[in-house]
Amino acid sequence: MKKSGLFVTLEGPDGAGKTSVMSRLESRLKEKGIRYTATREPGGIRISEMIREIILDPSNTEMDARTEALLYAAARRQHLVQVIEPALQEGRVVLCDRFIDSSIAYQGAGRGIGTEDVREINRFAIGNVMPELTLLLDLPAEEGLARIERNRDKGREVNRLDAESLAFHRTVQKEYAAIAENEPDRVIRIDASGTLEETAEKAWTALKSRLP
Amino acid sequence: MKKSGLFVTLEGPDGAGKTSVMSRLESRLKEKGIRYTATREPGGIRISEMIREIILDPSNTEMDARTEALLYAAARRQHLVQVIEPALQEGRVVLCDRFIDSSIAYQGAGRGIGTEDVREINRFAIGNVMPELTLLLDLPAEEGLARIERNRDKGREVNRLDAESLAFHRTVQKEYAAIAENEPDRVIRIDASGTLEETAEKAWTALKSRLP
Repeated sequence: MKKSGLFVTLEGPDGAGKTSVMSRLESRLKEKGIRYTATREPGGIRISEMIREIILDPSNTEMDARTEALLYAAARRQHLVQVIEPALQEGRVVLCDRFIDSSIAYQGAGRGIGTEDVREINRFAIGNVMPELTLLLDLPAEEGLARIERNRDKGREVNRLDAESLAFHRTVQKEYAAIAENEPDRVIRIDASGTLEETAEKAWTALKSRLP
Repeated sequence: MKKSGLFVTLEGPDGAGKTSVMSRLESRLKEKGIRYTATREPGGIRISEMIREIILDPSNTEMDARTEALLYAAARRQHLVQVIEPALQEGRVVLCDRFIDSSIAYQGAGRGIGTEDVREINRFAIGNVMPELTLLLDLPAEEGLARIERNRDKGREVNRLDAESLAFHRTVQKEYAAIAENEPDRVIRIDASGTLEETAEKAWTALKSRLP
């Protein structure tokens, strides 16, 4: 595939503000008249939605960690083929909320399957379509969980991952940090401990520098 | 995992008689008083059944070949963890209708994803639980398709794989032959062009020689 757009992913723990930052980035791109696609798996893609339903069904308590990792990779593949690749081919900026690094951090490290194995099945899933830029919203695990707790009081849906322990979320955060250290050209760490406006401004500065 | 049972898989094209051969092998094991588990993915395992529904849904025509391979691997993993491993740990003979070789032959070779890549994601799925014995029912692709056609007239359900071309099924057959050649200790080729009784007798002879 000949890519002509720019593939950007947002990563980081729940509670770091990815959704809000994404919407601010969209506004900025709109203002500048840049064509973009904002998405997150399963992204309304029928097959990926069906897969995601299996993963997040709280009654599937018997799900093995490797089964889960393979399902995430399958949903990712289909979303990539039907949403991301076509948008890149049209020359669009693609903003994707969570991608391969989430699997490496949550399944590979958090669930202890092994980061290299999880990276491998995800490479099978994404082929050569790696993000060119990844904005990693950085937040201490404690603060991410506290924010989720506050949002839960406001009626946000709770899924199986939220229910994990603080130790799990610390392991995830550590793996994210390792990815950022190993791939400094792709991954930019953004301090997300301030206000949403501050975080969004930092994210925009990072994204702006990579726009064509 | 400490395995003490014997893990046996049946492979080969639809139409070769795997289901019938399996049931004859079961009768023989019963006669000999050997504890066994006969199964095939998804095997009544809730998560695997849900995954299989997505794969075989004829309306999912947009499914990418890699998505499909990842879904098969996910269903395989869960079935392995919930059915095969516990049975082996109890010292049972496990007869499984289709396993990793089906994915390598149908997805890797047939769909052209690449046999090595498909082997890798399946190794992720099965860990170190490779079959100790694989009975490969060998049948020319033309004959397999002709038998399916006759069964279809009898009301057998048709799925997305049946609808593939003769060229596809020839590629699958060739890959099966290559696997058998590369792993002669594990894979025994069984001529399935005769009657079911003849095929089942050959399969039993092969299985008997590996029983404890």
